[in-house]
Amino acid sequence: MTTIIPSPELITSFTEIVGPGNALTGPSETAPYLVESRGLYRGTTPLVLRPGAVAEVSRILQLASRTRTAIVPQGGNTGHVAGQIPREGKADVVLSLERLNRIRDIDPVGNVIVADAGCILADIQKAADDNGRLFPLSLGSEGSARIGGNLSTNAGGTAVLAYGNMRQLCLGLEVVLPTGEIWDGLRRLKKDNTGYDLRDLFIGAEGTLGVITGAVLKLFPKPLGHQVAFAGLKSVEDALALFERASSLCGPALTGFELMPRLGIEFTTRHIPGVHDPMETSHPWYVLIDVSTSESAESAERIIQNLLEAAADDGLIENAVIATSEAKCKALWHMRESMSPAQKPEGGSIKHDVSVPVSSIPAFMAEADAAVMTAIPGARICAFGHVGDGNIHYNISQPVGADKQAFLGRWREINAIVHAIVLKHNGSISAEHGIGQLKRDELAKIRPAIELELMQRIKHAFDPAGIMNPGKVLRED
Amino acid sequence: MTTIIPSPELITSFTEIVGPGNALTGPSETAPYLVESRGLYRGTTPLVLRPGAVAEVSRILQLASRTRTAIVPQGGNTGHVAGQIPREGKADVVLSLERLNRIRDIDPVGNVIVADAGCILADIQKAADDNGRLFPLSLGSEGSARIGGNLSTNAGGTAVLAYGNMRQLCLGLEVVLPTGEIWDGLRRLKKDNTGYDLRDLFIGAEGTLGVITGAVLKLFPKPLGHQVAFAGLKSVEDALALFERASSLCGPALTGFELMPRLGIEFTTRHIPGVHDPMETSHPWYVLIDVSTSESAESAERIIQNLLEAAADDGLIENAVIATSEAKCKALWHMRESMSPAQKPEGGSIKHDVSVPVSSIPAFMAEADAAVMTAIPGARICAFGHVGDGNIHYNISQPVGADKQAFLGRWREINAIVHAIVLKHNGSISAEHGIGQLKRDELAKIRPAIELELMQRIKHAFDPAGIMNPGKVLRED
Repeated sequence: MTTIIPSPELITSFTEIVGPGNALTGPSETAPYLVESRGLYRGTTPLVLRPGAVAEVSRILQLASRTRTAIVPQGGNTGHVAGQIPREGKADVVLSLERLNRIRDIDPVGNVIVADAGCILADIQKAADDNGRLFPLSLGSEGSARIGGNLSTNAGGTAVLAYGNMRQLCLGLEVVLPTGEIWDGLRRLKKDNTGYDLRDLFIGAEGTLGVITGAVLKLFPKPLGHQVAFAGLKSVEDALALFERASSLCGPALTGFELMPRLGIEFTTRHIPGVHDPMETSHPWYVLIDVSTSESAESAERIIQNLLEAAADDGLIENAVIATSEAKCKALWHMRESMSPAQKPEGGSIKHDVSVPVSSIPAFMAEADAAVMTAIPGARICAFGHVGDGNIHYNISQPVGADKQAFLGRWREINAIVHAIVLKHNGSISAEHGIGQLKRDELAKIRPAIELELMQRIKHAFDPAGIMNPGKVLRED
Repeated sequence: MTTIIPSPELITSFTEIVGPGNALTGPSETAPYLVESRGLYRGTTPLVLRPGAVAEVSRILQLASRTRTAIVPQGGNTGHVAGQIPREGKADVVLSLERLNRIRDIDPVGNVIVADAGCILADIQKAADDNGRLFPLSLGSEGSARIGGNLSTNAGGTAVLAYGNMRQLCLGLEVVLPTGEIWDGLRRLKKDNTGYDLRDLFIGAEGTLGVITGAVLKLFPKPLGHQVAFAGLKSVEDALALFERASSLCGPALTGFELMPRLGIEFTTRHIPGVHDPMETSHPWYVLIDVSTSESAESAERIIQNLLEAAADDGLIENAVIATSEAKCKALWHMRESMSPAQKPEGGSIKHDVSVPVSSIPAFMAEADAAVMTAIPGARICAFGHVGDGNIHYNISQPVGADKQAFLGRWREINAIVHAIVLKHNGSISAEHGIGQLKRDELAKIRPAIELELMQRIKHAFDPAGIMNPGKVLRED
């Protein structure tokens, strides 16, 4: 399946669909759509289209299908694996969903919100909040990430422990298929066993099977009680034991359990304005424990107190503080969310977004640390993440004084070392961010042939012309 | 795609795979595999195979693929839509998973259990319990339903409100594909965004894409506190308002919210030994409220007391009782689970397994009641179910003294009336039970052409020879 380079006449035809103001061709206009946040990938495009209606998306894909023009859907351009970036040296047309940003309906009784795919995640959170409800998806880039992208990557974030990934937060979808046909799957049902699960196939497909244009998302009652504790621990083993204790004692009230290393606390307090270490003592590891309840404000306090007392009795924690106000809760979360940005001023960082079975976290961390320190003596490992989900952002900052470019040049070599250990523990090389271009060839190596074959068959069944985001997730054939 | 009638030689070849003791051909031996629980469908088969290993399933499907022999996977034969029953007048070979019933592994720290598809649901529940954990899937037929069937129909049951359907309870699958190839997707990861969601495609596919042979299922901490209340209400509107109150006040501690009509209480107390009306007063509607917490036994009591007080203040309930022991909790649940069996002694019952958006329940019920009573004056509507999921088992008992067969003869006519109202409210004609043979033609009528087309393309992509459970879910072509 080879896609074509659009002729000037074809560019004119695409432009007529969205109007000249929303068809960008100049290099300075298209530049923001061509590079992803880490700067690892830079794409090329003759044309960025910004449709303002689902019908326009449909007409664009009809024309693209007929002319075999490759289309790259893009939301907030916050993805980390270059799934949203056009291929370099090809002529992919970028389809930005940014103007499809209307909240179509909100039903607090039915606990659903219906929104265009181009809505910014923070705007969905705010609309829910304004209606006395919670939309729990929360992640670092929520101020610019758009929900179509969150859906296309099955986004996770910090609330997965209690509320699940995007697949668990979505009831229905509207998708424009590669032919331009519109699948109206905007259902609001919690139970519906009528045929194959098309919804979950489009979610996480990274725009390779169609363009998500709208979604029905679940809302939840706002918790009455919320409390955050911050504890210092001596080891990852103790963090896992504490997580088990917390799961039993808090049940579904446990809405966050995040691991951070001492190095991460040092980086954030050093580089992020307003971040302070809440403890006077220093510890090898830290966890942020978030508890939410519907019963009362006091109940969250009580649950977290019980947990910390039990943990102290068991010798699982060295020290702990409880936030004394909602502002203090936010400050602790801000520290956690600053882990990645705080690495930037420390030079190059080689990143991994991996998961392993929860009970394998300590073994994985010990083995990966040993292997990385052997490969790069002096490397500064800043591994943090969602212990309850088995999801570790295993990031490695360059040795002090090392050459940044030389260090970053070892990205794939170090990935290979860490991913081998992940796979040994039956883990995932992409827990949250997806495959995109960054991990496509690696996926092809690690997955059994039959699984790749099934994925290719699905791709062909949905997109026989091969125009939908080619070269992402799967190899072109 | 036409499948063949197996020759005596082919039957011998299949028999060699499983051994003669596990290849049934005599009418009395095969009879139990040919009729579903309600007796609506009776199938025919030349051969029932009972493999004892995944490798045998693989060899059966290899041979079936090569010879175009239709295969019908069957678990506990408890399905309600005849998805597990071979077609009448064809020569489908039944593949029973009943001997694949080994629990492969249980990891209480990682909170997973790995089991063969033929394990009985109650055995999984018990294994979890023995290890201090909860496997929450719970449904009437749990003593004989097997988890492969639960997975293939994305089973729901009474705990969906808090724990979700089978899709939410499954982390990984092992599937034998129509070619006999084995897909090892037995992952234990809570987060894994590496390609298309094959798992959720096999779940709910009713055995039309492959044979599920093993699964990794999620376990949960056992709640410390559990309490059940039973309340009498004047209307479905009040039940919905009470559900909203309960959602806000209990949050995830709300683990059940079941609606029952007065008629259901009369039927169960009349026909089911040991069921007694716990209240001296009589009410048009009842709800069972189930609360579970991890904090303490007292906390469940406190939460349910708070809720009932708030509901009484708002005038939402006419009367209520709280179970005074775990045995009393069980007795209230037993009443709820006896709703359907208690209809049997009352004569014929026309059933619907439908869902609507939660906020549409009162309107749906009022409209359906009016339409049914017009069509069949004297019909006794016994609609009950999972309010929080929008899922109503809208069952209709025959008028007193009516002819049972004549009444049941109007099954499809009444279905059409009720389903039209369901669809008007954007509901589902099969909330829990699936499509099978019973609702296949109706699905083809109500779904948009493009959706049926996408499902057919998936079917062809996975099963080009058309041997996997043909004629179920989708029409043969």
